[in-house]
Amino acid sequence: MKKMNLLLILVMVLGGCARQPDECTRLIRTEVPERPAGQTDVLELRTEPLPVVRVAFIGLGMRGPGAVQRMTHIDGVEIVALCDVEQANTEKVNRMLKERGFPEAREFYGDTAVWRQVTVLPEVDLVYIATDWKSHALIGVQAMKDGKHVAIEVPAAMTLEEIWALVNTSEQTRKHCMQLENCVYDFFELTTLNMVQQGLLGEVIHGEGAYIHGLQPYWDSYWKDWRMAFNKEHRGDVYPTHGIGPVCQAMNIHRGDKMNYLVSVDTKPIGNPAYLKETRGEEVTAFRNGDHTSTLISTEKGRSILIEHNVTSPRPYSRMYQLTGTKGFANKYPVEGYALEAGGLDPALTAHHENLTSHEFVPADVMQALMETYTHPIAKDIEEKAKQVGGHGGMDFIMDYRLIYCLQNGLPLDMDVYDLAEWCCLIPLTELSLDNQSAPVEIPDFTRGAWNKLTGLTFSE
Amino acid sequence: MKKMNLLLILVMVLGGCARQPDECTRLIRTEVPERPAGQTDVLELRTEPLPVVRVAFIGLGMRGPGAVQRMTHIDGVEIVALCDVEQANTEKVNRMLKERGFPEAREFYGDTAVWRQVTVLPEVDLVYIATDWKSHALIGVQAMKDGKHVAIEVPAAMTLEEIWALVNTSEQTRKHCMQLENCVYDFFELTTLNMVQQGLLGEVIHGEGAYIHGLQPYWDSYWKDWRMAFNKEHRGDVYPTHGIGPVCQAMNIHRGDKMNYLVSVDTKPIGNPAYLKETRGEEVTAFRNGDHTSTLISTEKGRSILIEHNVTSPRPYSRMYQLTGTKGFANKYPVEGYALEAGGLDPALTAHHENLTSHEFVPADVMQALMETYTHPIAKDIEEKAKQVGGHGGMDFIMDYRLIYCLQNGLPLDMDVYDLAEWCCLIPLTELSLDNQSAPVEIPDFTRGAWNKLTGLTFSE
Repeated sequence: MKKMNLLLILVMVLGGCARQPDECTRLIRTEVPERPAGQTDVLELRTEPLPVVRVAFIGLGMRGPGAVQRMTHIDGVEIVALCDVEQANTEKVNRMLKERGFPEAREFYGDTAVWRQVTVLPEVDLVYIATDWKSHALIGVQAMKDGKHVAIEVPAAMTLEEIWALVNTSEQTRKHCMQLENCVYDFFELTTLNMVQQGLLGEVIHGEGAYIHGLQPYWDSYWKDWRMAFNKEHRGDVYPTHGIGPVCQAMNIHRGDKMNYLVSVDTKPIGNPAYLKETRGEEVTAFRNGDHTSTLISTEKGRSILIEHNVTSPRPYSRMYQLTGTKGFANKYPVEGYALEAGGLDPALTAHHENLTSHEFVPADVMQALMETYTHPIAKDIEEKAKQVGGHGGMDFIMDYRLIYCLQNGLPLDMDVYDLAEWCCLIPLTELSLDNQSAPVEIPDFTRGAWNKLTGLTFSE
Repeated sequence: MKKMNLLLILVMVLGGCARQPDECTRLIRTEVPERPAGQTDVLELRTEPLPVVRVAFIGLGMRGPGAVQRMTHIDGVEIVALCDVEQANTEKVNRMLKERGFPEAREFYGDTAVWRQVTVLPEVDLVYIATDWKSHALIGVQAMKDGKHVAIEVPAAMTLEEIWALVNTSEQTRKHCMQLENCVYDFFELTTLNMVQQGLLGEVIHGEGAYIHGLQPYWDSYWKDWRMAFNKEHRGDVYPTHGIGPVCQAMNIHRGDKMNYLVSVDTKPIGNPAYLKETRGEEVTAFRNGDHTSTLISTEKGRSILIEHNVTSPRPYSRMYQLTGTKGFANKYPVEGYALEAGGLDPALTAHHENLTSHEFVPADVMQALMETYTHPIAKDIEEKAKQVGGHGGMDFIMDYRLIYCLQNGLPLDMDVYDLAEWCCLIPLTELSLDNQSAPVEIPDFTRGAWNKLTGLTFSE
């Protein structure tokens, strides 16, 4: 018997796959670090109310300046520090503050380590990070260790190590760590989420999301070409959060359900290498990322999710955003529409629509009535202001507004560090699936056992 | 050494996964039967021209009567036999023939074996099969053995055994075996295929297709409930051909590329069991098929395909049909549209459209000009007649017309038995993937080595 066991182990090791003697598992699993003793989850984390939120901004290249500008429209916010590698960027934003009648903020610039002077500032409550992808998590972890809440642009983390570091640091420090996923605040998504939460779509069993956006006009705008560089070096859905965020919210992920595993399939790379050759004369022979990446996800409660990524093909912008429920259907791109089982509709909405059938999208007037009736409570009062302030049609303002509102009132944020972890983990896990011929890859339970503790997503009010 | 080998085999068998001693493969492979000696492929099979095609119809429940009616509009067709289990069905179709001034056909009815009297009829050239799914391949194989060409409704085969039997029988008998996949003849699909073949979309790297159609109004129409019964007993994309057919044609599958493997993810079953309970009071506890099934496919040439199946959710009808090319994009549902790199467009089409950008769908007038300019040659002359005769808006007529035209002229059919095999194999292979936690499943090369012999799809003229 001893000899047999030894042999089995030998077979397992030589086989090069995680395998129990009694089964050949096809699922690739990554390591889930044990939660340190005494540390607990940060579900519905509440922190000391901050009537005035003092914010430091790190990263003022592309998304940062707009964020500072939006924050000037929210009461009870002090902009105390501006940080960027380039002095020109901090100066420009300070000029904007001055023009808008706000006090100038302290400026930090000069090199890629200068942000360390910002995270230690005692007069800061919130560090708002809009740097390149690769430094998001590094700065976020340090800022929490330095006692600050953090808000990090998407994707907040690119590797499992970074994700677990953010989760563990948030749990250890009891500081908020929110990913700045703006698309969950877009009006159609928020309204649809409200319809889901009101039961109008029944149980949402399948959802789709995407980031389909030809980035040719923007490739040259990223500092030191960091975005293209990441696509050169990495295969997979490297920008999944806009697609998956709104779908996970509609499915109550880690609030009653959890994602179990994913599989990914991609195409060969053509568009980006061609772009590099045409515009820069650059020959890249080992470009990693395919033009189009598709990912399917299976959840514990038997739901499925499709997520796509494509930043090069000649296609109209699309985040797909489609929810299939047992009683209704919502679709955002290329045209917004709802289909509903007539029985689920308020009779007032369906009057004069005897032919309303779930096999057709509802007509324009019913659509308009639905959008008005189901405007999400958190958007109701600030929708007009959001549209005035702007930022992707207003959704960016609602995001910032909610972040500040919850911090001021000591309420749980709309998105927690587990949302961040779940939405970002697609980056390394799709790469793992693709490099293993589309093998299923387990999606870790980042709550480490608490995914079923909450019953549904709620936005604090 | 002998003992060790025995032990390895034991481990493999007990492990329950196809496994070589030196690697744990994650890809599930099914057996590819060796091609019998002397037998060759039927790529571009040409048979003796048949100036008059004598047709026998088997299965006159749902799709059959319309097919007979359409055939009466094609010159050089004789309808010689009508076969169904129910006499009422054969009688009804004969009455239609009489009313339209055609000679009555011989009737065969009475039981589920009566079709065997039809396939042996010497006065028949083509057997047109529109029975329930489960008897499609059985009848098709026998008809070819009895010396007939066969045309079989979708899906033409439900298991790998049936698929290989059809392939082998067509190769042995040198008889045509075409699947009646009508959606490849729909106008938007045909026009788009022509645009692809003219190079307007560049290389098509990703394609999407679906069968999303709430079947609640039809469930009670299937003889002995065969369609619901199949969904009760089988998990997977059980009706993939409408979705995958047009995409495979645009990608030249087995004419320069081949599908390598698939992965599937589904949802739990809710809609169909609920329907059975509500309408029939039937409690089905072990309903197999999920409400929504999604499948991703990877091809040899680095392309990807997404196929979805949903026959229960309250959604508008959709076959998706979306092609992403390196120079253009086509999308059929929910609204038809093209996006094209301006450089690829005929200047005449783009005049007065200086702002034409690949990030937007082309405007309505350009769209109309494209549809007219790129009408597929095979549709050009018969488009008007097809719309008059009807059948899903005309596409069914074009399909029948092409089948008869090619048989009359001894030309290769538009779709061969390998198309049938590739499109139908999703049924058993998605089930295999789903039952193995979405593991990748190899898609066999049904041409057995000849997938790269032809350069592109051509419709004979």
